[in-house]
Amino acid sequence: MGRVTGRRRVRRISLDAADPSRVRPDTLAAEEPLEIRVGPAGGRRPALAVTMRTPGDDLDLAIGFLVTEGIISAAEDVLTAQLCAGADIPNTYNVVDVALAPGVAAPQTDPTRHFYTTSSCGVCGKASIDAVRVRSRHDIAADTVTVDAGILSTLPDTLRAAQKTFDVTGGLHAAGLFDATGTAVCVREDVGRHNAVDKVVGWAARTCQLPLTGHVLMVSGRASFELVQKATLAGIPVLAAVSAPSTLAVDLAEEAGLTLVGFLRGRTFNVYAGHERIMLPPS
Amino acid sequence: MGRVTGRRRVRRISLDAADPSRVRPDTLAAEEPLEIRVGPAGGRRPALAVTMRTPGDDLDLAIGFLVTEGIISAAEDVLTAQLCAGADIPNTYNVVDVALAPGVAAPQTDPTRHFYTTSSCGVCGKASIDAVRVRSRHDIAADTVTVDAGILSTLPDTLRAAQKTFDVTGGLHAAGLFDATGTAVCVREDVGRHNAVDKVVGWAARTCQLPLTGHVLMVSGRASFELVQKATLAGIPVLAAVSAPSTLAVDLAEEAGLTLVGFLRGRTFNVYAGHERIMLPPS
Repeated sequence: MGRVTGRRRVRRISLDAADPSRVRPDTLAAEEPLEIRVGPAGGRRPALAVTMRTPGDDLDLAIGFLVTEGIISAAEDVLTAQLCAGADIPNTYNVVDVALAPGVAAPQTDPTRHFYTTSSCGVCGKASIDAVRVRSRHDIAADTVTVDAGILSTLPDTLRAAQKTFDVTGGLHAAGLFDATGTAVCVREDVGRHNAVDKVVGWAARTCQLPLTGHVLMVSGRASFELVQKATLAGIPVLAAVSAPSTLAVDLAEEAGLTLVGFLRGRTFNVYAGHERIMLPPS
Repeated sequence: MGRVTGRRRVRRISLDAADPSRVRPDTLAAEEPLEIRVGPAGGRRPALAVTMRTPGDDLDLAIGFLVTEGIISAAEDVLTAQLCAGADIPNTYNVVDVALAPGVAAPQTDPTRHFYTTSSCGVCGKASIDAVRVRSRHDIAADTVTVDAGILSTLPDTLRAAQKTFDVTGGLHAAGLFDATGTAVCVREDVGRHNAVDKVVGWAARTCQLPLTGHVLMVSGRASFELVQKATLAGIPVLAAVSAPSTLAVDLAEEAGLTLVGFLRGRTFNVYAGHERIMLPPS
């Protein structure tokens, strides 16, 4: 697995064991910064963001990040994307340099551009939703896909079974893209749940599958505003999470026409928005 | 609880129930953006960051963020901090405006300042660790506190018992500050684990307790690089997490002289760094 994991020495404490302290090697999920540089072809491109991620699928992560931030909408908006080696330390590849295709506007490198409004003290949940709605190019509400509730209930086990790195580290989030029959088409893991989603979306962009009409995105953990935003920007009509959504995640899902499922565990789950896409068995 | 939680209508699906679809109200963890503005007194201060957080303890969150980013080191570095109401929507308070005391340097509003180096492609885990070392004012390694392993094993239950909002939403992270006897001195909840930590650190700054020598910080979920960074900048010698740490979290803990505990569950846990602070029962 290379740099996806790393080995460290750990002292295992078991208070009730005959030998309560044992030193052993342990496999951990790797975490490294990734700098994403983006701009027009020619010249040196500025850094747009640094994300702490698990190395691997870095080009997909960068492309997916640009899609879910509304900077590009398809792979053809990118002229070149390359992974750069570190100058000081060999074999570290922690920079992705993206040259945009002619005619694609470079983003402003303003850390607060997502939410910031020019009015004094004007930032609020509503302003956040408005910012996303303006930038999304996809009409999620028009997606007529339906998903069988029984199929939906199989997704957590399928996602979990595909988590190769979680098995050895116990410490990674996952995002899985499924079709409406419950077949996994792309599963990615990362120390950051948002990175796992960006890796999936970047894979879809690279394989020319955007927007992801008719698909279900399943994530480990909670459903935040940010994850609903990412699904919306990728054109995904159904987002399902193992745990709880936040208020703002539900509000954005309602506004965008996205189906939001939470607490998907075993044969039970909650539908917070867009329930018309969930098909129940005939009673 | 006010805006800490919000009510939404949810459709509960139980595939094996006689009535498989029931609509009911549900209580969710609130998520709203918080803009943090910081600069010298006088004039309009620029936005430094926007974080998606659960409303409540917002001044502490902002102050704690400034501490754990290395911008201030104590409450006296702040001249004034005030929560501003939204301009468009009444009763939304999503901006904290912080005026720094004379002589305190205002931060650069560069999103990549933590990791970016001037050398070409110079971003890497080592550089991230170096950046934390440069900004930290505390000698964690010199903290001689010891913590009884049996006391450490009680912290998850104590933290969980203090999570009032988790009980009703099932969807919040928590951070708890404990003394070496296992007594909780401050517990905060948030949709973002890093925000929960910042709220704790901000509370400690406001009550003039920084650096947090001799304390243990316990967090729900995983231990990332970012959380070790925050503990280091607040002068906390022991960080314990319910789940796994990443490689870079362990490396930073080693370098900073911080004790890092993971998989703290029941009577077993792993010590990834600084095991000399953990006292085992005599055999």
